[in-house]
Amino acid sequence: MRRNPVRTELRIRRVPPNPTRRWLKYAANTITAANLSLGLLSVLLSSMHLFHWAAVALMVAVLFDRLDGSTARRLGIASDFGRELDSLSDLVSFGVAPALLVYTQVYMEHLPLVGGALSMVYVLCGALRLARYNVQRFSGGFLGVPITFAGGVLGLLSFVSRDVHLLGFAAAEILLSALMVSKIPIKKF
Amino acid sequence: MRRNPVRTELRIRRVPPNPTRRWLKYAANTITAANLSLGLLSVLLSSMHLFHWAAVALMVAVLFDRLDGSTARRLGIASDFGRELDSLSDLVSFGVAPALLVYTQVYMEHLPLVGGALSMVYVLCGALRLARYNVQRFSGGFLGVPITFAGGVLGLLSFVSRDVHLLGFAAAEILLSALMVSKIPIKKF
Repeated sequence: MRRNPVRTELRIRRVPPNPTRRWLKYAANTITAANLSLGLLSVLLSSMHLFHWAAVALMVAVLFDRLDGSTARRLGIASDFGRELDSLSDLVSFGVAPALLVYTQVYMEHLPLVGGALSMVYVLCGALRLARYNVQRFSGGFLGVPITFAGGVLGLLSFVSRDVHLLGFAAAEILLSALMVSKIPIKKF
Repeated sequence: MRRNPVRTELRIRRVPPNPTRRWLKYAANTITAANLSLGLLSVLLSSMHLFHWAAVALMVAVLFDRLDGSTARRLGIASDFGRELDSLSDLVSFGVAPALLVYTQVYMEHLPLVGGALSMVYVLCGALRLARYNVQRFSGGFLGVPITFAGGVLGLLSFVSRDVHLLGFAAAEILLSALMVSKIPIKKF
């Protein structure tokens, strides 16, 4: 009676929806969604020329990004869906948001065309870095500077922008773009 | 002599480092990169309040997006890297770019807080749609309205915005967000 292995498997599979684990999985994805929302908030604040607040939103997003991945991995609830959502959020929060922040705050007035090109290069390099990371894993770390670090640095520079020259921003953006697509091995910490 | 079908297949596989195929693969990824660049261009134009041009950039990005995936699949050069890059580009070009366009053109002045929330919901739903698409394929089509379509509709509405009321934008954004995360089966065309 009901010894059919397929049936047994179905019954075994029905047990796992452990409510705590499922809740934690949602929690990790909710943190990722918060990261994305902060990134978009930073974009909207930059478009309203509220640069200091845009930089703050970006830096809070860095903290959220540190939380979600490590939480998911430590709890053993990392999922493909979570990883995809994380990459997508990272490109918005640490690619588009800092690029727009630096563009509206620094380049728009004094260097609109070259600044636009630099912003595009930065976002493109960030996307290439994320796409490569998703298909080519390197055990115990990754290749190239992570986009979260690059976005955090630009956010910080924007926050202290009174002391940074326009060319300082341009140099930082070029350097960070190159470091993201580089093959320098970086340890996870 | 060499009538074994497996051998034949192996011989076919050994040929590939075909310069044309490799070139085509780069071409498909270059089209994706152009899509992303147009998306970021649209973001920068929105931040400069050049709404018509931002909408044009967005609609050109829709054409590029139609090109790359179908080209890659038709030529049999679809790669995981290409797919990842495509998703990332789509979120910028058809998630963030139209959300910022509608925000800066329509909401910012008359509905800043609610409009900001609507923009966030739209981008979040777009990201969930893309992350789900990448992990859960449905043969011969997909579940939920694609983000490219949603972004294209918002770009078009922005382009003819003189005839669209603020509430029309809000309704369109809510409806498109819901359709993206819905499980309505959509045929590929």
